[in-house]
Order: sequence, then structure tokens, then C-alpha cells
Amino acid sequence: MLREKLSFALDPEMKASPGLSRTNTAIITLICISVLFGVFETEHTVTDLFAPVFAVAHVFFFVLFSFEYLGRIYAAPVNPRYPSCASYAATFASLLDLLVLVSFLLPLFGLEAALLRMFRAVRLMRLARLGRYSLALQMIGAAISQRRYELGVSMVAAVALMLLSSSALYLAERHAQPEAFGSIPRAMWWSIATLTTVGYGDTVPVTVLGRVAAAFTALTGIGLIALPTGILAGAFSDALRNIRATRD
Amino acid sequence: MLREKLSFALDPEMKASPGLSRTNTAIITLICISVLFGVFETEHTVTDLFAPVFAVAHVFFFVLFSFEYLGRIYAAPVNPRYPSCASYAATFASLLDLLVLVSFLLPLFGLEAALLRMFRAVRLMRLARLGRYSLALQMIGAAISQRRYELGVSMVAAVALMLLSSSALYLAERHAQPEAFGSIPRAMWWSIATLTTVGYGDTVPVTVLGRVAAAFTALTGIGLIALPTGILAGAFSDALRNIRATRD
Amino acid sequence: MLREKLSFALDPEMKASPGLSRTNTAIITLICISVLFGVFETEHTVTDLFAPVFAVAHVFFFVLFSFEYLGRIYAAPVNPRYPSCASYAATFASLLDLLVLVSFLLPLFGLEAALLRMFRAVRLMRLARLGRYSLALQMIGAAISQRRYELGVSMVAAVALMLLSSSALYLAERHAQPEAFGSIPRAMWWSIATLTTVGYGDTVPVTVLGRVAAAFTALTGIGLIALPTGILAGAFSDALRNIRATRD
Amino acid sequence: MLREKLSFALDPEMKASPGLSRTNTAIITLICISVLFGVFETEHTVTDLFAPVFAVAHVFFFVLFSFEYLGRIYAAPVNPRYPSCASYAATFASLLDLLVLVSFLLPLFGLEAALLRMFRAVRLMRLARLGRYSLALQMIGAAISQRRYELGVSMVAAVALMLLSSSALYLAERHAQPEAFGSIPRAMWWSIATLTTVGYGDTVPVTVLGRVAAAFTALTGIGLIALPTGILAGAFSDALRNIRATRD
Repeated sequence: MLREKLSFALDPEMKASPGLSRTNTAIITLICISVLFGVFETEHTVTDLFAPVFAVAHVFFFVLFSFEYLGRIYAAPVNPRYPSCASYAATFASLLDLLVLVSFLLPLFGLEAALLRMFRAVRLMRLARLGRYSLALQMIGAAISQRRYELGVSMVAAVALMLLSSSALYLAERHAQPEAFGSIPRAMWWSIATLTTVGYGDTVPVTVLGRVAAAFTALTGIGLIALPTGILAGAFSDALRNIRATRD
Repeated sequence: MLREKLSFALDPEMKASPGLSRTNTAIITLICISVLFGVFETEHTVTDLFAPVFAVAHVFFFVLFSFEYLGRIYAAPVNPRYPSCASYAATFASLLDLLVLVSFLLPLFGLEAALLRMFRAVRLMRLARLGRYSLALQMIGAAISQRRYELGVSMVAAVALMLLSSSALYLAERHAQPEAFGSIPRAMWWSIATLTTVGYGDTVPVTVLGRVAAAFTALTGIGLIALPTGILAGAFSDALRNIRATRD
Repeated sequence: MLREKLSFALDPEMKASPGLSRTNTAIITLICISVLFGVFETEHTVTDLFAPVFAVAHVFFFVLFSFEYLGRIYAAPVNPRYPSCASYAATFASLLDLLVLVSFLLPLFGLEAALLRMFRAVRLMRLARLGRYSLALQMIGAAISQRRYELGVSMVAAVALMLLSSSALYLAERHAQPEAFGSIPRAMWWSIATLTTVGYGDTVPVTVLGRVAAAFTALTGIGLIALPTGILAGAFSDALRNIRATRD
Repeated sequence: MLREKLSFALDPEMKASPGLSRTNTAIITLICISVLFGVFETEHTVTDLFAPVFAVAHVFFFVLFSFEYLGRIYAAPVNPRYPSCASYAATFASLLDLLVLVSFLLPLFGLEAALLRMFRAVRLMRLARLGRYSLALQMIGAAISQRRYELGVSMVAAVALMLLSSSALYLAERHAQPEAFGSIPRAMWWSIATLTTVGYGDTVPVTVLGRVAAAFTALTGIGLIALPTGILAGAFSDALRNIRATRD
């Protein structure tokens, strides 16, 4: 009976009603909090002040996720997909959970575990596919996939524009600013910042020719943003209409 | 009779014809002007020059809003929703009006009232819902609410991207620029500036690895803008079509 | 006969076929060139090099636009709208032409005419309404006018956001950076640069609280761009469909 | 027989099934790699480390593209469009291929060939029109061409805005910052960076009047992005609907 109850609580496939179970909602919330702890753990001014809090949280999350891990393995055989506990433990999802657990122990051996800790965020995604956002996710996914070739073409156009503009700036500015525009790969850093309209301003053309080329790059950068936006807007508009048409 | 006239002038629910009454239009205009005064009051180069203007305006707006406050309480019982003056005076809207009035008196006691003065802007919103912009507001609200899950998903994706890119930059740049990228929360400042394509340029990656990661962040930032724009564009297009279909 | 010929060539209302007459196309091209001259006239490194070219161009455009001005007045009575030459000369359009002519003579008296020269660009707009771009202009105008309330609401929201974010940054940063954030109007400069995602980076928050507020401002800035874009996209989509529906 | 086989492999017009032949896919991949080599060849820190790799790649790509060039000429007569090998060799496409080959030999004479090397990217485009992305390319092209007048009007509006804002900033800032805003063409550099929301921050207004004008410029810059995005979004939405309507 415990095994069945655990399975209903932890395995979304075994739950009768749609949506997330209360246990999984709690686990998602706790993973979010543990990711937040992981983020602030890297900031020494915070860890210096709240060292005991981080130490307790570390032990707490390790124990909690260990219980969750064991619980999922124990309850696995209820789902007909997994004939034995071992067959579930060998799945990619379960191995990822194990990796996260191991990442908690690494600091004991003096190793940094910042990267591994990020896998907790990956686990989040696995769980977040469920629940009431899944329809929205599907719709966004469908809209993107329906226009993947158009988006692909605009990505290729972006790369071509980047090559063209960084070559132009390389030719115009290489003598004036050899550090920033002395080669095409160097000029690319400026080119990406301009085409995406980020515009850091750390490297900026100073010659007249370079500025004229930069002006054209900035203007085509608008097109670079307008194109995917327009494609996605059209796709979303049509996707919703199709959903409605099939529902009626 | 005065009470009825006041009620018709001040209470939008008691007005027969749709739209704002002339009295309320005047009050909205005056609130706008008083907000403007509040904004420039913080700039000492302006207050030094026009000190008497500000002093007079202060007294003027205090008297004016006091009369409005008392007028609304006096006229409240005309509206069947409020059995007595006191029951209206106890509503959240009326208490907010009182708070604004109190904020005018605070400087007398040497306290700063900049924050409280901002509540005048909140009062504006309460009144602005009426009038001819209300249909536009409703339509924008409906379009946003209709796609709230899609917008929610793109917001979650934005947070995930921010975590991912700030972790990547933290790993790539923490030794080269410990001040700006020495922890994930520090790298987030750069990450947000890049993903929103604001690009201040106060913190910028300098290593090759960091720049490559930054380039990918900037490119995904375009998607971050394209996604909500596309979702809203589709929603507005469909919302208008629905309005028309029901009208025909 | 000369008067009729001039009228057909210069007055778009008297031309039988749609589109611009060859004379008007030439005049538009010449105005564009004269605007270009006006732009480069302000750059002394250019005028130092090509002083004679600018002097000749100055006389040339003065003579040319004088002839055009006199020609239009002479041909005006052909159009039934203008009973006499004087009635056309008194119209706003004709007075603007006169102003442009006067601007050419100002440098003789040692006055700067840079501003007046800009009116030539205004004259351009008056002529550009004609020709094959007029349908596109009408369609853009119709799409904007059809959604003017929605665009108005998003503009009001932009102003509200600007007030809110500059107040927040004023409170967070006024002690750390009194020069850049010492008052709400000062903080507005940063606020506009951030909300429009321009992000100059000349004034940037340095406190933790200021950066958190700035992060929210930058994120809402995306919405500020997405809202009008979405509204216009929906309007253009519907405008074209309506045009087609009435044509079928 | 060899000639026929070569023609089927190299000439997309002679291939029975749609899509790219395996040979052309391989050539496209190799051109991409050679473009990448061309990009990194300009960065001396890379060429210093991997000098032999670049030397070998240089010879390899020269031999490869020479064989491809000769193969295309040899196989040309199979296509009825080209009566002889010479008639194909005289086409623009073939002359471009020859130019690319010549560019490989230029370094032997001590000449720089960076620019010519870029033509390899142009060749890519010629081949990339084929294959499964061609429908997407056509659709994007159709959507842009269908609304070319609207896009043209918004481009003219962009130029007008740029002139207006750079004139305003020239008038406001020329005395405070003669280097950056001392003439209208100088102010244009700032104007473009602001209207496209790139915002480098290398030239920024410092006077109150200049900042007010800059704020309006930045706000209209949003419209400058929203307009083409909205036009394209509407066009894509309609284009897809038309494609479907004709298919049904």
C-alpha cells in the first residue's frame, strides 16, 4: 500500500487526474529554493554572513533529495513501464538525480560543485513539463516547429550579416584599432553586440568608413529582430486559429 | 440637492451618460500636474529657482484635494452602495485619498514625503479606468490574459536563460574580473542587461570563452523579445477578430 | 498655354493620370540633394575642402527654388481651388516655400539658417504623399489610427513605468550617485535609456537595491516594446484582410 | 557517361529528385569550412599557433575548388542551357568561381586576399537557394516583397527621424560637445545608435535640452522597430493563410 501511495504521489504517469500532485508541486518548489541557494552560494559576501544557514540548507536538501531518490526507486515497479526497481534506477532521469545527490558530497572532498548543482535546474524542467503550463509549452513548441525553416533561414541570414559586417569593420578599422578590430573574429564581438542591438559600447568604430558600415549594420540589426518576431507572431496567430477550428 | 449634484459630478457610477464627468476630467488633470510638481520637487536646482511656486502649489493642492476628499465623503450616501458617509470613508480608495492628504503635511514635521506623494499616481490609475480609454485597456487586458500561460512560459524560459548565461559567464570570467563576474548573482547583472538587449557596457566579458558565451546569450536575447511580442501580436489579432465576430 | 502646361507639371491635382509628374519627381530629387547639402554644410571639415562646391550649390538651389516658387504662383489660377495668384501665395504651403527661399539669403546677413533649411525636408513630405507610396502611407496611417486607443494606453503605461522606475532608482541610488540619480528628473534619463532598451551605460546603478530595481525595469522594457509591436502587427494583419474583403 | 554522372552530381537543374545532391551538400559544407578558415586566417594569434594547418588547408581548398571548377565546366554541355563548355565558363556564376580560385594564388604575390575570399560566402548563397530551405526563403521573400511599399515608407520615416533627431541634437549639444555633436553628420552617429536602440554610449547628450530631445528620439526608436516588425508579422500571417487556401 505504501508503494502504491508513493507512486501516486511521485509518478505523474500513475496519477488519475491531470496536473501535478501536491507532492510534486512541493518538490518543484524545494528544487527552486535549492537552485536559489546554489546561486547565492557563489557570492562570498552572502555566504560569509549566513554561513550556518547555507550549511543547514546543504544537509537539509541532501537528506530530502536522498529520500525522494530512494522513494522514486522504491515506487517504480507500480508503473508497468519499469519491471523492477533496478530498471528505473538505470534510466537517464534517475541517473541525473543520482548525479545531483553526488554533487552534494563533492565539497566534502574539496571539489567545487557549482556546475553539477546546475543539474538541479535541469531536473526542474523534467517536472515542469507537467501541470497546467504544458499546453502553453506545447503551443509555443508547435509554433516554433511549424516555422522552423523560416526561423532557420533568418538564422542563416543573421550569420551571413555577421560575417559581412565584421569583415567590413575589419577592413575599415584594423589600422585605427588593432586590438578591437585587428581580425575578423575580433570584429565579430562588436558585430554581434550591434546586430542584436545590445550595443555594449566597449568597442566602437572611430573612422568615418567604419561608422558608415556600423550604421548599416545597426539598421539591418532591426530587420534581424523583426524577421523572427514577425515569423513567430504569424505562427502563434495561425496556431491558435487551428486549435479553435479543430475544437469547433 | 447639492449632495446629488456633487455625487453626479464626482461619482462615475452615478453618472447617466458613459465617459468621465467634466469635474473628474479636471481632477485627473490636476492630479497629473501635482505628480509633475512632485517629480520636480526632488530636483534642488529647480526648487531653488522656483521655491515660491512650489510653496504655493503645495498649499493649493492640499486645499484642493482636501475639498475633493470631503466632497466625496459628503456625496457618498447618494450611491446605494454606501449606506453612510463613514462606510465610504472606510473604503480602501478613500483611505488612499486620506494618505495622500497626510503626505502633504509631513514636510511640516521635517519628514520626507516623496514616496507617499507617488500614491497620487496610483489614484490616477483608479480614475483613468473610466473614460474612452477603458475599451482599449480592456482589450489589452483580455489579450494578455488570454495568453497568460504562453507569456508565463516565456517568462520561465527567460529566468532559465538568465541562470544559464550568468552561470556560464561566472565560470568563464570569475578569475579575469572577480568584481563583476565573481559570483552568479554578480554575473546576473550583466546577464539581464544582455538578454533584454539593454547592454549598458559597464560589465563586459574579456576572455574568449566569456565572449563566445555572451554572443550566444545576446542571440537568445532576441528570441526572448520575439517570443512575447509574437504571442501578444497573435493575441491582439485574434481579440479584434472575436470582437468583430460577436458584433456582426 | 504655358500656364496650363506648368500647372499640369507642377500641380498634382491637375494631373490626369495618377502618380507623380516627371517635373515633381525631379523637384523631389533636387530637394533631397539640397537637404543633403544642408546636412554636410554644418561639418566644417567638409566645407573647408569643398567650399566652392557649396557656394555654387547654394546659388543654384536658390535660383532653382525661386523659379519653382514663381512658377507655382503663376500656374495656380488653372486650379479652380485658387481664384487668383495671390490666394495661392497666401496658402500655408506657399508661405513655407517662401520661408525656405528666405533661408537661402540669411547667411548674407551673417545669420545662421540651419534650422530654416530643415523646412526643405518638410516640403518633401508634402510632395511625397503623392506617388505610388501613398497607398502604403494610407495603410500604415489607417492601421495606427484604428488602434490609437490601444497605442495611447501603452504610451500611458510607458510614462507610468518611467515614473515608477525613476522614483525607485532615485530612492535606491541618490546617496551613492547624487549627480546621476539625485532627483527623479535626473533618474528619468537613465529610466528612458533602459525602458527603450537603448542602454547607453553613462549612468548605471551601483547599489544592490538599485540593480534589482533596474533588472525589473529592463524586463518590463521588453513588454514596453512588445505591446506596441503586437498591437501594430495585429492592426496591419486585419487592415490588409479588410482591404481584400472589400475588393472581392 | 562520366560527363552525365558529373552533371547529375553538380548541376541541381539536371537532378531528377528535388533537394540537394550529396555532392553539392559536401561542397556546401566544404565552402563553409573554407569560409571559417578565411575568418580565422586574419587572427594572427591563431595563425601563429596553427600555421601548418592553415598552409595545408590553403593548398587543399585550392586543389578541391579547382577540381570542382573544372568539373562544372566539363559537365556543363549536358544541361541544354549551355551549348558549349565555354558558354558556361563565361556565365557570372562561373566567373565568380574563377575569381575565388585566383584569390587563393594572390598571397603568393604578397597581396592580401581577405576581401576576395569573402566571395566564397557569396557562392554559398548561390547553392543554398536549393534544398529544403528554398520554400522558406521564397515565403520570406514573398512576405517582404508583398509589403515592400509599407517597408519603404517606414524606411523613409526612419531617415526623416534620423535627420530630425540629429539636427535637434546638433542644435542642443554643439557647444557642449563639439567633437561629437559639432555637425549634423557627426550627430547622426549618435542618432543611428539611439534610433536602432543599440545605444553604444560613446557619445551621449549632456545638456538638459539635448537629453529631452534624446528621450523623444529613443521613444520614437521603439516605433521604428515596431513598425517593420508589425508589417512583417502581418505579411507572414497572411502569406501562410494564402498558401493554405490555394492548397485546399
